[in-house]
Amino acid sequence: MRLGSPFLQACRGEPVPYTPVWFMRQAGRSLPEFRAVRERHTFAEMTASAELTAEVTIQPVRRLGVDAAILFSDIVTPIASMGIEVEIQSGVGPVFAEPFRSEADLARLRVLEPATDLAPVLEAVRIAVGELKVPLIGFAGAPFTIASYLIEGGPSRDYARTKALMLGEPVLWARLLERLADITIASLRAQVGAGAAAVQVFDSWAGTLHPDHYATYVLPASTRVFAALADLDVPRIHFGVTTGELLAYFAAAGADVVGVDWRVPLDRARQRVGGRAVQGNLDPAVLGAPWPAVAAEADRVIEAAGARPGHVFNLGHGVLPGTDPDVLARLVEHVHARTAKASTPADAPENARL
Amino acid sequence: MRLGSPFLQACRGEPVPYTPVWFMRQAGRSLPEFRAVRERHTFAEMTASAELTAEVTIQPVRRLGVDAAILFSDIVTPIASMGIEVEIQSGVGPVFAEPFRSEADLARLRVLEPATDLAPVLEAVRIAVGELKVPLIGFAGAPFTIASYLIEGGPSRDYARTKALMLGEPVLWARLLERLADITIASLRAQVGAGAAAVQVFDSWAGTLHPDHYATYVLPASTRVFAALADLDVPRIHFGVTTGELLAYFAAAGADVVGVDWRVPLDRARQRVGGRAVQGNLDPAVLGAPWPAVAAEADRVIEAAGARPGHVFNLGHGVLPGTDPDVLARLVEHVHARTAKASTPADAPENARL
Repeated sequence: MRLGSPFLQACRGEPVPYTPVWFMRQAGRSLPEFRAVRERHTFAEMTASAELTAEVTIQPVRRLGVDAAILFSDIVTPIASMGIEVEIQSGVGPVFAEPFRSEADLARLRVLEPATDLAPVLEAVRIAVGELKVPLIGFAGAPFTIASYLIEGGPSRDYARTKALMLGEPVLWARLLERLADITIASLRAQVGAGAAAVQVFDSWAGTLHPDHYATYVLPASTRVFAALADLDVPRIHFGVTTGELLAYFAAAGADVVGVDWRVPLDRARQRVGGRAVQGNLDPAVLGAPWPAVAAEADRVIEAAGARPGHVFNLGHGVLPGTDPDVLARLVEHVHARTAKASTPADAPENARL
Repeated sequence: MRLGSPFLQACRGEPVPYTPVWFMRQAGRSLPEFRAVRERHTFAEMTASAELTAEVTIQPVRRLGVDAAILFSDIVTPIASMGIEVEIQSGVGPVFAEPFRSEADLARLRVLEPATDLAPVLEAVRIAVGELKVPLIGFAGAPFTIASYLIEGGPSRDYARTKALMLGEPVLWARLLERLADITIASLRAQVGAGAAAVQVFDSWAGTLHPDHYATYVLPASTRVFAALADLDVPRIHFGVTTGELLAYFAAAGADVVGVDWRVPLDRARQRVGGRAVQGNLDPAVLGAPWPAVAAEADRVIEAAGARPGHVFNLGHGVLPGTDPDVLARLVEHVHARTAKASTPADAPENARL
């Protein structure tokens, strides 16, 4: 599977039989089979159960025919596993009982021991990889975005506390980000060890930063993450939203593939990331429009990506909860058909399904 | 006052004795005198009272020494004035009882009659202009952002309904935006008639759009607004957040001054807007950091703006509610001092205060 995977080929900038597709949050509330699981279990129960995690990780591959699965997880799962109290609130996100405030809080972030701390996560990876015929993408948050949740205590509109700490206590900030980087590294190395064939590092909210702030206060920690994964020889994807001015830095941090939200046309994004592959970038809200509009918008993404290899089709952010799964499935078929080259039967998209 | 105003000079790209400063949401919860008014009155009561509106419009000029006032208002004030039921919820924003859903809802958006519909607003402008020694900026929403509130029923994270209508019913969408453009035009022309010396058009959320969507579905209506104000000979400012890829369009729509959020360095923004003046762009969250960091960040904005005339110092978005007003006042002084040229006493900043 691995060598012949269009997803992995595209990540590596190699020619592909058709443009591969997956969707951020493809394992989520848009799927009835996910909601059926979610109604019976809390988020914490789901991530604590290898079977449930594997099940919802696989669901979108079965239904949608996507070219990759991504581990069902949350950005805060590794730090939650070391006893930091956090609740994933539906429709809100992670909420911390005791936000990070000062140097004393650093002690709560110990070294991650994946084999024990992430035992169910790694078992879920093994189960999913055993069942899947497409690659599994490992999942982790980037240091800035984890730090922002820890410091704000939850999702934020303005990241005021985060930025005040970053600018006001730069030494403490750097120590925090380095520690979070090491947790991310340990988590992703363990996921690859368990069978993940690629990794995606979510720096979802880094786009709230001025580029100079990103370069000074965040890029070193993100570079540390990507450098520490280089020897694994798996594609490393780097994603955030409102990152138009940061794309060159996202590439410079060491990513093989740079995720692009829908605000930047892919041809423009290609220029900013140099030779790296790109992933994206259909506006998730477009999927609520009538099908002809969805198809036209998908075609525009494909056209902007251009003929050069190195494009993984995806949304510019996660699938919205109200999205019709039939539209997602139709979109996968559409992108495959629209980009299919003359190929041997072994390359045909249907053989890439589970 | 008008000819000698550094704010108006900067808007026109003329040389200034010092870089003028004002802050979006300077009339707001960061000021104790504003909170004192707000505690006794609802938002609707405040905008319905010319005296209260004028009072809170003037407050920040008194306390902070800014170089311009902006009318205290809300993006939805004109449509609320024609009987569309909307409540400004504290910490949330405008919430509509009956969101815009179909062609039948167009009839609720009649032609604005400013002299009657906006009588207290215009009286507030007259009172404020009579008391102020700095220019008053008129306030209105741009068609897209008003439409997004109307269609979503309130603030939104993803604008899914707005985009579905825009892509799925483009004719209805165009009619809606044209009607909203005409309301914005009537409101701003009346504000200028009452004494406003400049106008700012808030397309706060247009940055959620792919540039192609902006160009096709929004630019025509915004262009209509700016063209219909051209004969007034007052500077027209055009603002939104996450607009990095839209800045050239924001200029092309006809703005004299393009507002820039903090994600795009001003030198880069200058390139994208051509010869227009720029306004911005300090990250509002920076004001929560210790003063040396605030000063350093302000200096970076000034440096990125460069020596070319045509920079109005501002934040990249509104003042955050928890901001210390002393920091705002100190920032005004700092920018004035940092940018002051050898000048006659008549140009000195203190004479620009109320």
